Amino acid sequence: LPQKHSATGTTIFTVMSALAQQHNAINLSQGFPDFHIDERLASALGRAAADGYNQYAPMAGLPLLRQAIAESFQKRYNVTVDPDTEVTITPGATYAIYTAFTAILSPGDEVIVLEPAYDSYIPNIEMNGARAICIPLSAPSFSVDWQRVRNAITPRTRAIIVNTPHNPTGAIWTINDWNMLADAVRDTDIIVLSDEVYEQLVYDDRQHISVLQHPELRARSFALYSFGKVYNNTGWKMGYCIAPPALTTAFRRIHQFLCFTVNTPAQYALAQHLAHATEPIHSIMQRKRDHFLSLMAHTPFTLHTPAQGSYFQVMSYERISDMHDKQFAEWLTKEYGVATIPVSAFYSSGHDDRLIRFCFAKKEETLEQAVERLKNVP
Amino acid sequence: LPQKHSATGTTIFTVMSALAQQHNAINLSQGFPDFHIDERLASALGRAAADGYNQYAPMAGLPLLRQAIAESFQKRYNVTVDPDTEVTITPGATYAIYTAFTAILSPGDEVIVLEPAYDSYIPNIEMNGARAICIPLSAPSFSVDWQRVRNAITPRTRAIIVNTPHNPTGAIWTINDWNMLADAVRDTDIIVLSDEVYEQLVYDDRQHISVLQHPELRARSFALYSFGKVYNNTGWKMGYCIAPPALTTAFRRIHQFLCFTVNTPAQYALAQHLAHATEPIHSIMQRKRDHFLSLMAHTPFTLHTPAQGSYFQVMSYERISDMHDKQFAEWLTKEYGVATIPVSAFYSSGHDDRLIRFCFAKKEETLEQAVERLKNVP
Ligand SMILES: CSCCC(=O)C(=O)O
Ligand SMILES: CSCCC(=O)C(=O)O
Repeated sequence: LPQKHSATGTTIFTVMSALAQQHNAINLSQGFPDFHIDERLASALGRAAADGYNQYAPMAGLPLLRQAIAESFQKRYNVTVDPDTEVTITPGATYAIYTAFTAILSPGDEVIVLEPAYDSYIPNIEMNGARAICIPLSAPSFSVDWQRVRNAITPRTRAIIVNTPHNPTGAIWTINDWNMLADAVRDTDIIVLSDEVYEQLVYDDRQHISVLQHPELRARSFALYSFGKVYNNTGWKMGYCIAPPALTTAFRRIHQFLCFTVNTPAQYALAQHLAHATEPIHSIMQRKRDHFLSLMAHTPFTLHTPAQGSYFQVMSYERISDMHDKQFAEWLTKEYGVATIPVSAFYSSGHDDRLIRFCFAKKEETLEQAVERLKNVP
Repeated sequence: LPQKHSATGTTIFTVMSALAQQHNAINLSQGFPDFHIDERLASALGRAAADGYNQYAPMAGLPLLRQAIAESFQKRYNVTVDPDTEVTITPGATYAIYTAFTAILSPGDEVIVLEPAYDSYIPNIEMNGARAICIPLSAPSFSVDWQRVRNAITPRTRAIIVNTPHNPTGAIWTINDWNMLADAVRDTDIIVLSDEVYEQLVYDDRQHISVLQHPELRARSFALYSFGKVYNNTGWKMGYCIAPPALTTAFRRIHQFLCFTVNTPAQYALAQHLAHATEPIHSIMQRKRDHFLSLMAHTPFTLHTPAQGSYFQVMSYERISDMHDKQFAEWLTKEYGVATIPVSAFYSSGHDDRLIRFCFAKKEETLEQAVERLKNVP
């Protein structure tokens, strides 16, 4: 059988979540909340099914939901999005990223990837016969080395994928980053994939800046979003893609023969829910981040930079061990009952800075119990 | 942007459903029921969300649901399926078909397709850089011309996709068809994709025969299934793939970087529901087919063969018009308020036998109202 991508075995998220379960460890590895979703959202799902929203939605998604998304972007980012020609609902953001790549890549194309990077990007590029050109972000701030990006561009460069707020590092992009990107791609036909799944998770009064707010870049970008990261329902597997009409048309040409359409009751429930006023998710998560970091100060793990966004915190174990991070994460799970993600899993080279990633989207008591265990690490 | 497949425009199902809505027509085009799902299934979905089943399910699917599927295949087909290594839950069967093709195809491969065929097959093949070799089924019975299949096999033939019960013709395969297929592919490494989404919709005391019941073929087959066609919840977009461990491994290598995992509350609700005793769906649909056919006898449409399976009935309009079928279907929608699917949409060549497809998975009154309108056709 053909090797469609170079990734071997199972994703690190599956591996670590399974290991956590096996060793009865507290799972701070895979990114998902361990607390309840808003009860109104749960009951909206039941009501959608009871009310008969159980047949195929239109291919692009329920108009009601696309409209609610457009309104939310108008309100929150002051950008106008056409729900009919620019928004497509997808079964999760991972699927949306794959579909965007598939819409634009031909064999032999190159795609620039900034590493560490979410582990589906490179397989997705390779599944389309294209090649990932990987550029490391500069530790410890994980900022972009724009000179290296410009140097990596060739006539074969078809796309660049960027991610802000960033998984796993929690770094967020400033307007300067977007401007540097615009400078780099101007006079090329490079398409931008902007993975903004953590857009609503930014801290310390920072603001997420979306590619959609940069008119020059927006005209050549797919922006990819997740409901699961906003409404704590990761298991619903709901996301969406916003892109200008021509790119949306190309996206839907793939989507209509891939999944065709997305779970109707979930779409309906989310459309209802988007209208509800709720406490902004970033306030809730910031309390968790702050609580987690103050607890972690009593452990031998080293904090370089507090996460500016996302629900992940990267920390160093340099004072504890010089094991490779995969080995360390396994050891920590088995011996101390706390599962994390080794950051080298986000590098195609296996580059290892002795960092692990904690997910802090957890109940207070989960975070407290985990840190109690981590305090025992010598 | 690259042309990933030759299909132009929007799928015929989207086109006809939209046209139906626009002209306020009764929609017998796209295949979905217009009646309610089992209330217990609707409330199981609400309960799953309320009970907290809202985070990522394991990549292969909820163990509970895979177990329920295995039990159902043991009971109904007397075949043993390993839920851990042979079953993968997918966001619908269309996605499962795409994923199976992507797992096995390389550029330059050929895939044999029997036409008329569901309209995602050929785009899916082409999206993988492979080529569809199309063989027409022999009207009016739509049986397979096995000599033509054998002649079409070349060293480049990587797969064949078959579909029973058949969309759009309603034909079902006998054990003789499976044996002929086994003869044809023996001594090759051709992989079989068996689209069995209508497995539970067979009529007149016939039995569906699954590829899983044919040990020789099973060893080289992906069998693809849909919950939506069984539980009338097409909009939930839930399906699954059953394949031997090596093929399942290849399938999951794609799936884990494509969608990663599937809607958890829907998986949980279906797992609960599979245990319920319900009236077999084929009895319900047979009553609808019989009712529809007896009503249609009073119209100028010609019946060649009653559907043996699926929830579609193909009929000829030869006594009404010699328009092309796409034109006829459009005319019928606009002038008489009944939307159908022109069968030529299932042929890459646009081959047109002056047939249209009716979906009879509708309430009695819907079928009656539709036929009242069709009686006016001169
Ligand atoms: C799709 S599983 C991964 C969840 C996540 O985004 C992460 O843990 O990085
Ligand atoms: C995914 S839309 C098509 C539904 C269906 O199976 C059909 O109408 O043939």
